[in-house]
Amino acid sequence: MHHVLSVEQFDSSQIEELFVEADRFRDQVADPKQRRDLASRYVGKQLCSLFYEPSTRTRLSFEKAAANFGMIPISTENAREFSSASKGETIEDTVKVLNEYGFDIIVLRHHETGSASQAASVSETPIINAGDGKGEHPTQALLDAHTIFRKFGRLDNLRVAIGGDLANGRTARSLAQLLSHYKGNHLSFVSIPELQIGEDIKVKLRESGTGFEETTDMYDALRDTEVVYWTRLQRERLDNPDALPKGGFTIDALALEVLPQDAIIMHPLPRVDEIDPQVDADPRAQYFQQAGNGLYLRMALFDQILK
Amino acid sequence: MHHVLSVEQFDSSQIEELFVEADRFRDQVADPKQRRDLASRYVGKQLCSLFYEPSTRTRLSFEKAAANFGMIPISTENAREFSSASKGETIEDTVKVLNEYGFDIIVLRHHETGSASQAASVSETPIINAGDGKGEHPTQALLDAHTIFRKFGRLDNLRVAIGGDLANGRTARSLAQLLSHYKGNHLSFVSIPELQIGEDIKVKLRESGTGFEETTDMYDALRDTEVVYWTRLQRERLDNPDALPKGGFTIDALALEVLPQDAIIMHPLPRVDEIDPQVDADPRAQYFQQAGNGLYLRMALFDQILK
Amino acid sequence: MHHVLSVEQFDSSQIEELFVEADRFRDQVADPKQRRDLASRYVGKQLCSLFYEPSTRTRLSFEKAAANFGMIPISTENAREFSSASKGETIEDTVKVLNEYGFDIIVLRHHETGSASQAASVSETPIINAGDGKGEHPTQALLDAHTIFRKFGRLDNLRVAIGGDLANGRTARSLAQLLSHYKGNHLSFVSIPELQIGEDIKVKLRESGTGFEETTDMYDALRDTEVVYWTRLQRERLDNPDALPKGGFTIDALALEVLPQDAIIMHPLPRVDEIDPQVDADPRAQYFQQAGNGLYLRMALFDQILK
Repeated sequence: MHHVLSVEQFDSSQIEELFVEADRFRDQVADPKQRRDLASRYVGKQLCSLFYEPSTRTRLSFEKAAANFGMIPISTENAREFSSASKGETIEDTVKVLNEYGFDIIVLRHHETGSASQAASVSETPIINAGDGKGEHPTQALLDAHTIFRKFGRLDNLRVAIGGDLANGRTARSLAQLLSHYKGNHLSFVSIPELQIGEDIKVKLRESGTGFEETTDMYDALRDTEVVYWTRLQRERLDNPDALPKGGFTIDALALEVLPQDAIIMHPLPRVDEIDPQVDADPRAQYFQQAGNGLYLRMALFDQILK
Repeated sequence: MHHVLSVEQFDSSQIEELFVEADRFRDQVADPKQRRDLASRYVGKQLCSLFYEPSTRTRLSFEKAAANFGMIPISTENAREFSSASKGETIEDTVKVLNEYGFDIIVLRHHETGSASQAASVSETPIINAGDGKGEHPTQALLDAHTIFRKFGRLDNLRVAIGGDLANGRTARSLAQLLSHYKGNHLSFVSIPELQIGEDIKVKLRESGTGFEETTDMYDALRDTEVVYWTRLQRERLDNPDALPKGGFTIDALALEVLPQDAIIMHPLPRVDEIDPQVDADPRAQYFQQAGNGLYLRMALFDQILK
Repeated sequence: MHHVLSVEQFDSSQIEELFVEADRFRDQVADPKQRRDLASRYVGKQLCSLFYEPSTRTRLSFEKAAANFGMIPISTENAREFSSASKGETIEDTVKVLNEYGFDIIVLRHHETGSASQAASVSETPIINAGDGKGEHPTQALLDAHTIFRKFGRLDNLRVAIGGDLANGRTARSLAQLLSHYKGNHLSFVSIPELQIGEDIKVKLRESGTGFEETTDMYDALRDTEVVYWTRLQRERLDNPDALPKGGFTIDALALEVLPQDAIIMHPLPRVDEIDPQVDADPRAQYFQQAGNGLYLRMALFDQILK
């Protein structure tokens, strides 16, 4: 493996191999002796965190994954404001310099779609795309998929309710696209019409024969689903906030009553008020574990790149 | 030991044990061979510096303490502006995610009083409060106490002059409170009436039988004291700057003449003009050593948490 | 070696020794086994990156150099805004505290000329000046010289064209000054009159007997040179942008035709449009390698300080 730019670059067997390795690293980290051994695995190698916009959660996860292997992360958390970018340097030039510095992996977060591919096009150092504007964020898509896989042992033949601002939400779009590569999935998109999933995604779902429906009735979608993938819907951005149904798509005690006992509730976080904190104690709530899954998945990717 | 939220959680024997260990680490760090050995003590463990507001001095001290043990610090220096907090995420959610990442210690600096306790209430990972608004900053209080203890070998029966903006100064308030737990201390609070020490502290002093007085006469307070604890008094925040006595509570050559030879001068730093730089060369000036004491105290806390 | 404040502190044999060591570290880093060995060389030592203004490229290079030796870098990337400096603390006080923390090296970037010397005057910890306002940036000057030396094996008897905003450009001024210490160099300064090299530099060149000329004709200067050292000329800062010659001092395909085959093209980066990206593929373009040379040079300096 070299650059990690898009979840689309992985076939299903590669994805499952990543999951196996991620779980193996999880087990090793849980064991004090093995954890200490891991910490010498890539001693002497260095990660560069090149974040043009802050994304503290994502950055800390990548850097923790690196440190778990004994790699020292070297970091800039707001390169857009702080670095030569503010003097007009292109991402290509920046990456060429980092290549000369001899980093082993560059994790790149950028505000412009396509910037990760631009960076990779001039980089011998492996680039991991940690989000490029409205583009891709492949490790997020993979950790979402892994969370589902850990529960159900499969990524096909699932009923999935995806809710929130689907027009703008990168994670919701990526998950729908990923699930379209597997057979027999059925997706319920829960949003108001103006924030429904994009036509481009619907075209892909139709082409792949993936069933889907669009609805404004959250409870109806939850009643018969295995995976709830919830995202923020920013009330203040709506032209007409009154268009929101009562309760505004908030997963709460009432929603828990409707939801099957075997389902899981996911969220890419941060959440604001679209999942009531009292839901956290319910065993179906898996959003914090979901974030944790990203750590091991990033370790698995680092390992595939470096070994 | 688990969370470190308040200096009030330690009894006097625990505090003295910390001092002993801090001094032991100081000796080890001073010896090149032992220093190198220390650097493998907690290899494979990681500190998360979660600073919602910048406090470079404090953060560097914690991170240096971690690095002295071979722990890689992973850091955000302005989480309030940079992180999901700006999207409305609660501190509890942020900490739950960091728990999933498996950090060994989280050092939290936050602008809101009570946030460290909030964080600890949901955290299996040990939280060290590195200052929560106007609340607590226990490692500062401990390093202040350690500085006194290193000089006098005790925290009781001391004459202490505490000066500056005592109404708003967290460090001055904490020190007064800590000293009220020991017998026979006498405190002189030096400030103008509008910035004198809070009534809540005076109640605690009276309840504990700790003697104190309030004065605007700095020279009078310095004449008969063993510890001078000086803090900033921000002239520009005063309603009536002319209310300040001449010299404005500045420790200078004249103050040094008045001060007993065996006294020490402390300051939590940064200082601006309330201690004249010519005082630095006087052996009684201990404010830089005081800052250094914090390093070893933080190492001692890390060690108690991790061992 | 202790503090590194100015390139003027090194004589020519010390400079060549640094080059030899830098190249030795380059070779060691290129070999996986030796690279891993290097990473334990200074384990247990720590670098403090104290940047009062952001300079991401420079900071990452120093921190990568430290990490190559197993040193954990502890970093603040915008101390001016984030630290006690905003409360009025002097650089001397900050450095005295960092001395107490026991860092092994402090790399200081500051917006005020002379601040590195101020810092060094109170510091037992070695200070490396990573740029102090319009003052010095000795590791940049050394890496520039090293880039020339790697190509030509000497720093004397060279024909060098230096172009861009020479009035304000620190790197161009430093290079001219450094080359004045060697015999037989000839410098062509290419700029418009209002941005030509300062009179202070011209005085030094005359005193040392170094030949030079000032010109607005880039092509003429390139025709007969061995080293092209190009820098930014910020069009938007000019009183009269039309005063720029056609092409505005941009190194492009036409310039490559004029330039001798054996020459090298250097630039301190970031570049904007003063070197056309199509030049990058030409073997004479050495600006990215030049940046990379800085990594090994900083390793060599660290090693001389720490060994």
